[in-house]
Amino acid sequence: MLSLKQCVQVLSMRCISMSASKLKYVNVAVDDKTGIATVEMNRPPVNSLNTPLLQELSTTLSDLTKNKSRGLILTSSSPTVFSAGLDILEMYKPDPERVKLFWTTVQEVWLKLYGSVYPTAAAINGHSPAGGCLLALSCEYRVMAPKLTIGLNETRLGIVAPTWFQASMQNVMSVRDTEKALTLGTMFSTDEALKVGLIDEVASDKQDAIKRCEQFLLQFAKISVEARAMTKRNCRGKAIADLENNREADLQNFLGFVNSPKVQRGLELYLESLKAKK
Amino acid sequence: MLSLKQCVQVLSMRCISMSASKLKYVNVAVDDKTGIATVEMNRPPVNSLNTPLLQELSTTLSDLTKNKSRGLILTSSSPTVFSAGLDILEMYKPDPERVKLFWTTVQEVWLKLYGSVYPTAAAINGHSPAGGCLLALSCEYRVMAPKLTIGLNETRLGIVAPTWFQASMQNVMSVRDTEKALTLGTMFSTDEALKVGLIDEVASDKQDAIKRCEQFLLQFAKISVEARAMTKRNCRGKAIADLENNREADLQNFLGFVNSPKVQRGLELYLESLKAKK
Amino acid sequence: MLSLKQCVQVLSMRCISMSASKLKYVNVAVDDKTGIATVEMNRPPVNSLNTPLLQELSTTLSDLTKNKSRGLILTSSSPTVFSAGLDILEMYKPDPERVKLFWTTVQEVWLKLYGSVYPTAAAINGHSPAGGCLLALSCEYRVMAPKLTIGLNETRLGIVAPTWFQASMQNVMSVRDTEKALTLGTMFSTDEALKVGLIDEVASDKQDAIKRCEQFLLQFAKISVEARAMTKRNCRGKAIADLENNREADLQNFLGFVNSPKVQRGLELYLESLKAKK
Repeated sequence: MLSLKQCVQVLSMRCISMSASKLKYVNVAVDDKTGIATVEMNRPPVNSLNTPLLQELSTTLSDLTKNKSRGLILTSSSPTVFSAGLDILEMYKPDPERVKLFWTTVQEVWLKLYGSVYPTAAAINGHSPAGGCLLALSCEYRVMAPKLTIGLNETRLGIVAPTWFQASMQNVMSVRDTEKALTLGTMFSTDEALKVGLIDEVASDKQDAIKRCEQFLLQFAKISVEARAMTKRNCRGKAIADLENNREADLQNFLGFVNSPKVQRGLELYLESLKAKK
Repeated sequence: MLSLKQCVQVLSMRCISMSASKLKYVNVAVDDKTGIATVEMNRPPVNSLNTPLLQELSTTLSDLTKNKSRGLILTSSSPTVFSAGLDILEMYKPDPERVKLFWTTVQEVWLKLYGSVYPTAAAINGHSPAGGCLLALSCEYRVMAPKLTIGLNETRLGIVAPTWFQASMQNVMSVRDTEKALTLGTMFSTDEALKVGLIDEVASDKQDAIKRCEQFLLQFAKISVEARAMTKRNCRGKAIADLENNREADLQNFLGFVNSPKVQRGLELYLESLKAKK
Repeated sequence: MLSLKQCVQVLSMRCISMSASKLKYVNVAVDDKTGIATVEMNRPPVNSLNTPLLQELSTTLSDLTKNKSRGLILTSSSPTVFSAGLDILEMYKPDPERVKLFWTTVQEVWLKLYGSVYPTAAAINGHSPAGGCLLALSCEYRVMAPKLTIGLNETRLGIVAPTWFQASMQNVMSVRDTEKALTLGTMFSTDEALKVGLIDEVASDKQDAIKRCEQFLLQFAKISVEARAMTKRNCRGKAIADLENNREADLQNFLGFVNSPKVQRGLELYLESLKAKK
């Protein structure tokens, strides 16, 4: 049962006006009192990041800038998975044009989220491997529910996390822990993630995680939006400029990699193993 | 009462010969035995860093290089404030030529202090916000008295710490803690500052802080001055080169910022709030 | 007495085929089961890194790449010293051509070891100052026997650790600890080294250290060699490119330094002090 306070909170939420009506894979709710938007990925069963979901995230991130949002909480509608990461089906036997659009959209979402003007937090209420971990890392704060796993485990799938994935991890973990985590493809438990700095807090559940994210974001309520945004840009600018100035090279690098027979064979084996599980 | 040992220490101090006679806002005393200079900022009530104080600091830092100083301890004559930071009056309704000289001198002091040949330590015997924190961060070691506060709290004043302020903080704190501290404009208590690495030691009072700084500096007594200086330059060179190669752009960036109506209005409100307190 | 398991281990070792027969200062043994090579520096009494030893290390590192090695464990045949570092005799009153070859080989060994395709670990079974510490730092994992010392203590000898030595230390330690360690020339005890992250584990003795290194390396057994290598390159690429693009400048820097009268006098004094000890 909801408490009175919770009822008021629910009532003060409303759907974001502009693009929200067109959104299929993303639920957006803005708290009128705080100006904070909760963005819920909603592509069952595991929020695999395919082009349409990524495009909706990209649109949403831009809308929040236009709406002068006071903050973003990123979470998942799934009870078990935050996001399973990039959708393998976008990379397996790829159509040349479609896979290009896919990677360009991955870049775009990261550039917008990592460099957003408004403050950002991830309420990680489910497992968060690879691309899911990247989304969480791109926020400014991470709160995670217990007994979950998170990590950039790309090497375990025979693929390579690009340098901007690495930069995002080094933004919160030590250089040492990052190298070990990336080469080993480590999936951290919630407790281990807290210890290495991959997350900032442990929450009891999704609702608690969202509440703690909100508390983090509300700290910025009285701080100049412009000064904060420029300061964040100072901190994250190098990694952002590194990708902005090399988007085409990064794309070609990805295409060369994803089209190699070895990677295709690896993805095939992985997809077969998923089918076998069903 | 002074112990015999302390008397000897006091007697072995002498004023630095060359420029010291002309100094008004800075007290310099050199220990003849150790070759270590104690530089005390002395612009009551709170060592606001205006152009004359900064110029005297700049001259002093150069004199210490010429005199082949064996070390610098930076401290304050105020019993409560190390330095309140950049003098708002230099930035409020600024005269075009004067504000240019002001920022150029801030750059100069940082370049000389951050890149000094001789070892440096800050005996932080009072609160140390913004520019005060920058001076402390530019030293190689920080000892702080208890129950004080320190931090780069620029965003709280609606302004932005330049990238070299950020680099100075990242030189001692983790990337993660730096981003959080800079965007939030966090003022750390002495204990919190120790925990995140913003300071190295806690002292009982000013005299104890100076003694501990001295102990740090004396560790270099038997180390080749040249090898030490080149090694320090290797460690700090990138941040120094980043500013040296971009002084004009950094100045223009500051001027554009300080001359914006929004920042001017913010400074006005801040000055009014200070007057109201009196 | 060896256990049955140990006997099997010993029997499954064999000398590496290609260049090993020509090696004088390096013992190489490859475990046929795991594909891991143990490379033992063997230039008594203290594995001073002169040109011949460095050349053999360089050859060995390339052979391991050609042989698609599954991993390298670097250790020492000395019971007390891992490596005493760069051989002073290569730098004292240097022959112009020979000292050029010497430094070029130091660069080469670091580039190959720091950037190796196969995973690497150091079983540090003896003291490890200066160049010895660099070799350990260039590996991906470090296990050290108790009651030893390790560090980049170059400033204590009046010389300067080049920027790539510094980068190697910053790859495992914090920026703060690195600056302090390099300027002070700190030699860390085994326990202190563990605390600052300079080593990853403490072993009871050499055999235990090798076993723990092996356990680290075996974690990569099921991970794609290519994906792992590219990920490592992403993490270490900047430091490697910095030297690769500046080898000649780095050489000239070293030559100017090593040929200065001050450094020569320092090396002379150091050599005399070594003789006096005998």
